[in-house]
Amino acid sequence: MRYFLLIVALLFSKSFNAQTDQEVFKRLYKTALTNGKSYEWLDYLSNQIGGRLSGSVNAELAVAWGKQELEALGLDKVWLQPVMVPKWIRGAKEYAYIKSTTGKTTNVNICALGGSVATNPLGVEAEVVEVHSFEELTELGEDKIKGKIVFYNRPMQPDLIQTFEAYGGCVNQRYQGAVEAAKYGAVGVIVRSMTLRLDDLPHTGSMTYNNLPNEKRIPSAAISTNDAELLSSMLKLDERLKFYFKQNCQQLPDVKSYNVIGEITGSEFPNEYIIVGAHLDSWDLGDGSHDDGAGIVQSMEVLRLFKENDMAPKRSIRVVMFMNEENGLRGATEYAKVAKQKGENHIFSLESDAGGFTPRGFSFECNDTIFSTIESWKSLFKPYLIHYFERGGSGADVGPLKTKKNVVAGLRPDSQRYFDHHHAANDTFEHVNKRELELGAATMAALVYLFDQYGIAPNSYENH
Amino acid sequence: MRYFLLIVALLFSKSFNAQTDQEVFKRLYKTALTNGKSYEWLDYLSNQIGGRLSGSVNAELAVAWGKQELEALGLDKVWLQPVMVPKWIRGAKEYAYIKSTTGKTTNVNICALGGSVATNPLGVEAEVVEVHSFEELTELGEDKIKGKIVFYNRPMQPDLIQTFEAYGGCVNQRYQGAVEAAKYGAVGVIVRSMTLRLDDLPHTGSMTYNNLPNEKRIPSAAISTNDAELLSSMLKLDERLKFYFKQNCQQLPDVKSYNVIGEITGSEFPNEYIIVGAHLDSWDLGDGSHDDGAGIVQSMEVLRLFKENDMAPKRSIRVVMFMNEENGLRGATEYAKVAKQKGENHIFSLESDAGGFTPRGFSFECNDTIFSTIESWKSLFKPYLIHYFERGGSGADVGPLKTKKNVVAGLRPDSQRYFDHHHAANDTFEHVNKRELELGAATMAALVYLFDQYGIAPNSYENH
Repeated sequence: MRYFLLIVALLFSKSFNAQTDQEVFKRLYKTALTNGKSYEWLDYLSNQIGGRLSGSVNAELAVAWGKQELEALGLDKVWLQPVMVPKWIRGAKEYAYIKSTTGKTTNVNICALGGSVATNPLGVEAEVVEVHSFEELTELGEDKIKGKIVFYNRPMQPDLIQTFEAYGGCVNQRYQGAVEAAKYGAVGVIVRSMTLRLDDLPHTGSMTYNNLPNEKRIPSAAISTNDAELLSSMLKLDERLKFYFKQNCQQLPDVKSYNVIGEITGSEFPNEYIIVGAHLDSWDLGDGSHDDGAGIVQSMEVLRLFKENDMAPKRSIRVVMFMNEENGLRGATEYAKVAKQKGENHIFSLESDAGGFTPRGFSFECNDTIFSTIESWKSLFKPYLIHYFERGGSGADVGPLKTKKNVVAGLRPDSQRYFDHHHAANDTFEHVNKRELELGAATMAALVYLFDQYGIAPNSYENH
Repeated sequence: MRYFLLIVALLFSKSFNAQTDQEVFKRLYKTALTNGKSYEWLDYLSNQIGGRLSGSVNAELAVAWGKQELEALGLDKVWLQPVMVPKWIRGAKEYAYIKSTTGKTTNVNICALGGSVATNPLGVEAEVVEVHSFEELTELGEDKIKGKIVFYNRPMQPDLIQTFEAYGGCVNQRYQGAVEAAKYGAVGVIVRSMTLRLDDLPHTGSMTYNNLPNEKRIPSAAISTNDAELLSSMLKLDERLKFYFKQNCQQLPDVKSYNVIGEITGSEFPNEYIIVGAHLDSWDLGDGSHDDGAGIVQSMEVLRLFKENDMAPKRSIRVVMFMNEENGLRGATEYAKVAKQKGENHIFSLESDAGGFTPRGFSFECNDTIFSTIESWKSLFKPYLIHYFERGGSGADVGPLKTKKNVVAGLRPDSQRYFDHHHAANDTFEHVNKRELELGAATMAALVYLFDQYGIAPNSYENH
């Protein structure tokens, strides 16, 4: 047993050079925490540019800003990758109220879902059917639904520890609610906001009409959780009350936009690519600080930390600011398509799109062999309180880069507060903590460093 | 190997009854997250009572409220434990400015340190000596210091991952700064606020004069970090500038106050005590939501979760709301003294006094044997993302209960934002997240459940 441990220890110290790795980690964290730039960048992106929905002027400002900041870092290459993106605009502020059968009206807070059609110019007013699932909708059928507004009111499950799981269990109401309700002749859809909090803010997000012809598309809006509770209570007392809402959003023709890409070219294996990325677009209600300004500036910071510490990577490291994650994923699709065309070997792709909160670890998509190597790196992260190394989903933007051989992963920050802000007007700069943001950037840089050092080939650990 | 695993599995299932434990954990977390009371309690304590410095009317209101709420839980016993506490009052708002040699004044944000004497009624004005350590003070000596204000400006170290470590590395400036500066004839002390943020809020906290006679006691105040930076910059340009400050705080005679205690008496081992506790007093600038309202309501919630789930503990479980942690520790000292007098066997004492943030784990003081048992419980906590089980300091209030045989521990929440609020005017209710608070309470309850089930005697694991 003792000899076995000795051999393991020797192998480990040879292949993973633990002392150097520890020193590099220390340097990366120290630089991020004492001389970081992510927070200053986020301040600009959030407060000087603000919300940046695909196709908007702000999105174009963000592209120009991203390119300029990457150029200022002195990377080996910086370029824009053109991509056509959808352009949906909210129009004037939405308006809604509940009207009791006695005629009394109570204003409520709603916002159009991204991609929704407008109501007619005078708005929609109809009785309401509250449901909690598509099954319930099917049971009610056309008889009970036709001519009415369907109100989806299944809350996120509060006893799930990981809030993304709770979100995953509810978001079909928002994304497919209109298609399902339209089947039975509903005239509109109101969806309980995807948040665990009870508050007054409606949370937008993408929705689909699939291939429904235009005349069958019904307007869809999110309602704040407080108002969802109110509406539900009022329906119990007055089931024939009416709901009125008006919105004049529209889908315009696609416009040209860009992914913003910067690269430090590898010294030994320039054709092996490691990318760190996030999405540059955001919803329009807040300034997109957590979703996903935080991920953008953390990804930029990873490359800056390498430059700042004179770390010349063996492999090519890219930062990719993906355009249009929120309502189309066109940027990620384009990036993956071009990478495939060029035969670029993306060995590791890391996304940060879960908010700028204290990092806890990563979620990996890869094969067993690679994962066991990754797990052996855990101890290096322990002093930084990074403990979560699990198999699981990576992220929407790096997903298209997944192959059988490579690794795609997502940063996993603490998720408890994420949906308090997600897609709502309070996704703003002051809700991002500087240290938490910086720790995330350092944690990403540390993992990128390990993949750069050791690669992912089965024998790469012996070679270096 | 297979047999070995089988035996281990059998032993484990017998001694720790893992399935039942898992079920209990699930129930505790679910109750806390879906039907918790901690947040509602904190709302009352913070927003209806507010800051509650020892000896204040608010502290007495908090005692009455705590007793009433514990009585409403239907515990077996609820009582007040009298204790004399210091009564320090801040008086009128403090006032300070920097006066350049040309006579221009710039107002800065300060607050008296808890326990400080007042300035004379007209205030103190003097030249400033900036130092970063007591060593520097000694080197300067009386020549350079006499008649001046000493300005301690050593910042908290930002690259320490655990912010409590950074605090520990600086707080001697606040606590002993006046005593050290008085040795060399300083007329006042200004201390950089103990926070990692740069902002405008001064952070108070306790300080000592040791046994200095009254006439040697010099007034001490904290200055906001932004103003500390400003003062330091201005000193570089104008070293003979003057600093003026005025404060009229005073130390009044001790007054009677109370620890508030509630107990569920154990069914099998009523003379073995497990306590969960926090401090009911707070500083006066904010409403004490993180420090330590959060700990108070989490401790209350632990007992409520047992009641709510009809879990009759084998051992006696107490909630203790300690009075006067901030500036005297009189409550904790009294509780430990009485416990010793009565020969009460406190097998496990758990404190929550590090903010209401997402819980990460616990820090334990105990012997090796017990710690290895505790470590074997880690896997039960994994689904709840609780990963931190380390030896280390427990907490100020449970510290006096430590013996060679028992266990004292502290809850360890994420610490990144704690010192943004600590002892400052922004330690307020809106900075506590409901889910994070509730997760902390559930995590404490889960650990208390395990100690109640399995005790700490070397053979107790076999007996039950």
